[in-house]
Amino acid sequence: MPAPRPSGRAADALRPVILEAGAARHAEGSCRIRLGHTEVLCTASVETRVPPFLRGKGEGWINAEYGMLPRATHTRGEREAARGKQSGRTQEIQRLIARSLRAVVDRRAMGEMAVTIDCDVLTADGGTRCAAITGAWVALHQAFEHCVLKNVIKRNPLRDQVAGVSCGIWKGEPVLDLDYAEDSAAETDGNFVLAAKGGIVELQGTAEGAPFSEDHFLRLLALARQGTEQLFAAQRRAVHL
Amino acid sequence: MPAPRPSGRAADALRPVILEAGAARHAEGSCRIRLGHTEVLCTASVETRVPPFLRGKGEGWINAEYGMLPRATHTRGEREAARGKQSGRTQEIQRLIARSLRAVVDRRAMGEMAVTIDCDVLTADGGTRCAAITGAWVALHQAFEHCVLKNVIKRNPLRDQVAGVSCGIWKGEPVLDLDYAEDSAAETDGNFVLAAKGGIVELQGTAEGAPFSEDHFLRLLALARQGTEQLFAAQRRAVHL
Amino acid sequence: MPAPRPSGRAADALRPVILEAGAARHAEGSCRIRLGHTEVLCTASVETRVPPFLRGKGEGWINAEYGMLPRATHTRGEREAARGKQSGRTQEIQRLIARSLRAVVDRRAMGEMAVTIDCDVLTADGGTRCAAITGAWVALHQAFEHCVLKNVIKRNPLRDQVAGVSCGIWKGEPVLDLDYAEDSAAETDGNFVLAAKGGIVELQGTAEGAPFSEDHFLRLLALARQGTEQLFAAQRRAVHL
Amino acid sequence: MPAPRPSGRAADALRPVILEAGAARHAEGSCRIRLGHTEVLCTASVETRVPPFLRGKGEGWINAEYGMLPRATHTRGEREAARGKQSGRTQEIQRLIARSLRAVVDRRAMGEMAVTIDCDVLTADGGTRCAAITGAWVALHQAFEHCVLKNVIKRNPLRDQVAGVSCGIWKGEPVLDLDYAEDSAAETDGNFVLAAKGGIVELQGTAEGAPFSEDHFLRLLALARQGTEQLFAAQRRAVHL
Amino acid sequence: MPAPRPSGRAADALRPVILEAGAARHAEGSCRIRLGHTEVLCTASVETRVPPFLRGKGEGWINAEYGMLPRATHTRGEREAARGKQSGRTQEIQRLIARSLRAVVDRRAMGEMAVTIDCDVLTADGGTRCAAITGAWVALHQAFEHCVLKNVIKRNPLRDQVAGVSCGIWKGEPVLDLDYAEDSAAETDGNFVLAAKGGIVELQGTAEGAPFSEDHFLRLLALARQGTEQLFAAQRRAVHL
Amino acid sequence: MPAPRPSGRAADALRPVILEAGAARHAEGSCRIRLGHTEVLCTASVETRVPPFLRGKGEGWINAEYGMLPRATHTRGEREAARGKQSGRTQEIQRLIARSLRAVVDRRAMGEMAVTIDCDVLTADGGTRCAAITGAWVALHQAFEHCVLKNVIKRNPLRDQVAGVSCGIWKGEPVLDLDYAEDSAAETDGNFVLAAKGGIVELQGTAEGAPFSEDHFLRLLALARQGTEQLFAAQRRAVHL
Repeated sequence: MPAPRPSGRAADALRPVILEAGAARHAEGSCRIRLGHTEVLCTASVETRVPPFLRGKGEGWINAEYGMLPRATHTRGEREAARGKQSGRTQEIQRLIARSLRAVVDRRAMGEMAVTIDCDVLTADGGTRCAAITGAWVALHQAFEHCVLKNVIKRNPLRDQVAGVSCGIWKGEPVLDLDYAEDSAAETDGNFVLAAKGGIVELQGTAEGAPFSEDHFLRLLALARQGTEQLFAAQRRAVHL
Repeated sequence: MPAPRPSGRAADALRPVILEAGAARHAEGSCRIRLGHTEVLCTASVETRVPPFLRGKGEGWINAEYGMLPRATHTRGEREAARGKQSGRTQEIQRLIARSLRAVVDRRAMGEMAVTIDCDVLTADGGTRCAAITGAWVALHQAFEHCVLKNVIKRNPLRDQVAGVSCGIWKGEPVLDLDYAEDSAAETDGNFVLAAKGGIVELQGTAEGAPFSEDHFLRLLALARQGTEQLFAAQRRAVHL
Repeated sequence: MPAPRPSGRAADALRPVILEAGAARHAEGSCRIRLGHTEVLCTASVETRVPPFLRGKGEGWINAEYGMLPRATHTRGEREAARGKQSGRTQEIQRLIARSLRAVVDRRAMGEMAVTIDCDVLTADGGTRCAAITGAWVALHQAFEHCVLKNVIKRNPLRDQVAGVSCGIWKGEPVLDLDYAEDSAAETDGNFVLAAKGGIVELQGTAEGAPFSEDHFLRLLALARQGTEQLFAAQRRAVHL
Repeated sequence: MPAPRPSGRAADALRPVILEAGAARHAEGSCRIRLGHTEVLCTASVETRVPPFLRGKGEGWINAEYGMLPRATHTRGEREAARGKQSGRTQEIQRLIARSLRAVVDRRAMGEMAVTIDCDVLTADGGTRCAAITGAWVALHQAFEHCVLKNVIKRNPLRDQVAGVSCGIWKGEPVLDLDYAEDSAAETDGNFVLAAKGGIVELQGTAEGAPFSEDHFLRLLALARQGTEQLFAAQRRAVHL
Repeated sequence: MPAPRPSGRAADALRPVILEAGAARHAEGSCRIRLGHTEVLCTASVETRVPPFLRGKGEGWINAEYGMLPRATHTRGEREAARGKQSGRTQEIQRLIARSLRAVVDRRAMGEMAVTIDCDVLTADGGTRCAAITGAWVALHQAFEHCVLKNVIKRNPLRDQVAGVSCGIWKGEPVLDLDYAEDSAAETDGNFVLAAKGGIVELQGTAEGAPFSEDHFLRLLALARQGTEQLFAAQRRAVHL
Repeated sequence: MPAPRPSGRAADALRPVILEAGAARHAEGSCRIRLGHTEVLCTASVETRVPPFLRGKGEGWINAEYGMLPRATHTRGEREAARGKQSGRTQEIQRLIARSLRAVVDRRAMGEMAVTIDCDVLTADGGTRCAAITGAWVALHQAFEHCVLKNVIKRNPLRDQVAGVSCGIWKGEPVLDLDYAEDSAAETDGNFVLAAKGGIVELQGTAEGAPFSEDHFLRLLALARQGTEQLFAAQRRAVHL
């Protein structure tokens, strides 16, 4: 029998998830996601022009930025604006968020329009990048609906849902949705960004200590599928689908 | 009879204020302040060492940082971390917040300990710097109480309460607590940081268009006193005094 | 009887002031101001285009930059150009200088023209930001006269004079025009930017230690009025009005 | 029958690989790797102290930096040193290289010693990050052997070999080792960092257009295993194992 | 009889020089120069537009950038891209390279076209800036020939050859082509950039310790002429003149 | 007969030079140099510790920084502090100033002490870097005398005088001490840093257009010797030697 997880959850148990669409007053789309103690505010800001490399191509663009409030964490982290640059981790995460969303958008249907996704972590307790993707999809959906209402576009260009979840090997056992304590102790750490229709959008697996086996990785992927099913349902409820 | 304010409030009416102490899970002290639609999350982070210029002097220090989520505003602002530096406005505000709090703290009673105040604007609708000061006092109080409980200090080194409110001349009439629409149209803009025992901590008056008269300034100050009385009461309730 | 000031001056005595218009060979307008040992070189540089946010609006703009030579001070300060960024103090001061000048300019009468004011402190002995404003007005006046002569504008768009002076509470006593030694020891510090026709352009009062009273603040303001009268007279002499 | 690849290679054909150990005169370890036209110079620099967070823990550290000569690419890219910061892509790659190497090192056996891996791309034709990992392992091995010879450590702390290869779906077909032309047109792009003893060190799969299936991903992984076998053999030859 | 040089070379002996034109696959022009152990990769990148200050003037421009791989040196140097800025030395060298090449180019004959020269030091053993100039001339020649072939320009705008060599006073004796060991110990250090038709393009002489005499300087210049003759011959061979 | 110079001066005429020692109130040593319209304020700041690479070696160090007020020039230049970095030109000049002074100092006699030279150009009309060196020597001399008086060092560690002057070929004719108008039109530009006892400290000759001849260069050097004789005399008067 496997050792109980620090969180007391079953190996395949997701933390309670709450998606609150429209949480930011000024943004075209927004969602505050709570996944256990992790809390991320996601906004989608629409601009009616695209970056230079896309001008005149009739396609839209989606970009993302990610930040963490200095005291979102157990000990205060340095404010990136004060330090004068974003860390490698921040840049890696914001590239991942943007790619993940672009994979489920029909960019031709957007026309020449850009959406900037901002994901700001208010409280961090593990899984912030995956929670950001899950919440950002809701913010993006809301922003696109807003554009349809305003007759900027004819239909919502989202082709699929996308959500992220982290899994890992903890004391030799694959477990779903690592919180901070579990993540710090995990031997292998994976981030899975999956689409509701069954496709894989992004996979990342990292050996924290020793290399891991293909079998273990497949078990993590299976857990991730199970977890994202619950996230997809929560997204649909949040946008009234 | 004066023209009605855009907000419909009476000239001397403060917006509804809600102070939620303990809003940030990990910080030693925290407070989420809502003043009308303006919403600021304030945290107080305790460190048991002081900056180099104070080492060995037996005194504490209080520093502040201020930020705004990119979509806290009507149109998205550039993320300062991405731009690689903080604006002059940001730096001016964080210096004001820190000075205001230091004025009501007995820094000798702190011993060699530093507190960093982070004020992050989640939604901006005017008066964010003043709201940040009001909320930061609650966060700081809570952090000091935490230190007393942990026996780091013997008593709470706060000597007084401090709160901030903005006032301005709108269509020739002094009004209390400008929201964004009013602030944009005000002829004169003042920020008042006052202490509960009656002293003035910081005064700033700025002619946006033409210079203003001393009489007008004194009427703004009187409104500010009235407004901060309500804020002091809210602070006491928030920290159970 | 109050304790004598470190400078030996009476409580209401301004330091000797010298305004030397035209001190910079290449600039359209310039003024070297000496206020006691404090010495600031102010230049006004005219450009025939405005920043993007004003294009096509038929209005002018005034911007300011402030700097201090590394050895303007008792001990050498780091060169901001070498450090790669301007301090919060620098940015706060240059925003104050620009706002103060804009308050006495008819920006419509400028047309689409921008003036950049540079204030560089050659020697610092307290009151540099106020001296910069006083000297900058002379530089700006000279630059506008130059533009009138060159037929770029029809009349000088200055509507009023503006000058700045610092006052403070020193050993419980309000005193005018703090030098460095007095400023370091003052309990309260105020910067007053006043217009010659009687209006207030900017007021800033800061409690360095304990909060201050309204009565004290009003006495500082009265001293400031008295001091700026002398500065206005010196400005008029410098520009031959 | 699948469409021929732009390179004309079979779906499972690796480009010719040349590993030249000792290519950099001054470094403790070095390797120039050529993979088709892609050419990366990897050096390993030994320092006898660790970063602050590891001091006194008796463990070593491995860090990596990655760069690209401005004209390594078809059109000249901006020099990151001139631009004043490293791109998100650069930071993501150098984090990947460092993590990959740390996964096969016994950091306790290193003692308190740090190795910095520099990977500089001289010519880019796809797969530079994977080639960098493959070459860096040789440089690191050589540096550790150097330390053994110098009696800094008792034995080479490498526990396994590690190599990277990219695979992708090209016109619906999984193919091994994408060159630049193939990479630009691939629907799915994967980077595989594998260990010689069979473990997985890092997996990354990205949907460039539409999401991909689990089956496709497993076929990419199988190709990667086949390709890294050849790379492991080349590494062993390069270090005379 | 003078003391033997550390390198064992005669006072007027140049190190072996190898110029490999076309060393960079993607660039319009390129040259890898080896001068003893010093090795620099020079590329010339052609762009069909000039910097703003030259637009519409019918002249071309040549710019240069210089970099050093972190482990080109005996001990690892910090990567300038990671540090976020180029050192003063780097900037001085890249200005020298660009000026030297511009002096032998007929910029009118280029038309409105810009060439960026990148010189990246792979191995440093003294004399890198001079070697960079010598190699850059070959890269530039090749790039211009490429433009002639493509009918972008009618004839090669190079009017002369240019090459650089360092000389110095070592133990009181003028010597040609200092390597790193000699350069560190030289009393006087000179960089000479000469043209094949006999003119001087750049001269720099620096007293490392005590000032030097005019006579010594003239002897260094004579050595430099002798050394550059060999470099000019090597350049002609490299470009088949 | 040669064409008259724009300045009307004879080919070998230096501009009027005024050296005002002690011009900066707070610095240990200072000198304001005026050379025609060019005006540079030089200060020498003493610190009783050396940079890390010299600690424990019993030697002193001299460093230099150079800046230009934004409106020292005909058109306003961007403030380097605002731009966030120093230009290549600035860095090249400050390295030259520091090297030139170090060449005439007995660094052993300084002991472990550092002097920072700041040269700030108040008005630029050609020859600022050379004027800076000439003025800096006076500031440095004064600072060392100050240290002797304070018993920090036993004797003034200056072994010689050093001064700089620019010369150039103007319309085919060698001329001394180029002002801005002449410098812009010169075919060849040379900076000469010479010592009073006859040695050469730094030589730089640059072909602005076509390469120049050795003969021309020697005539420039002769003019420079003549010019620096006058500067050495002015320096001796300024420091009462």
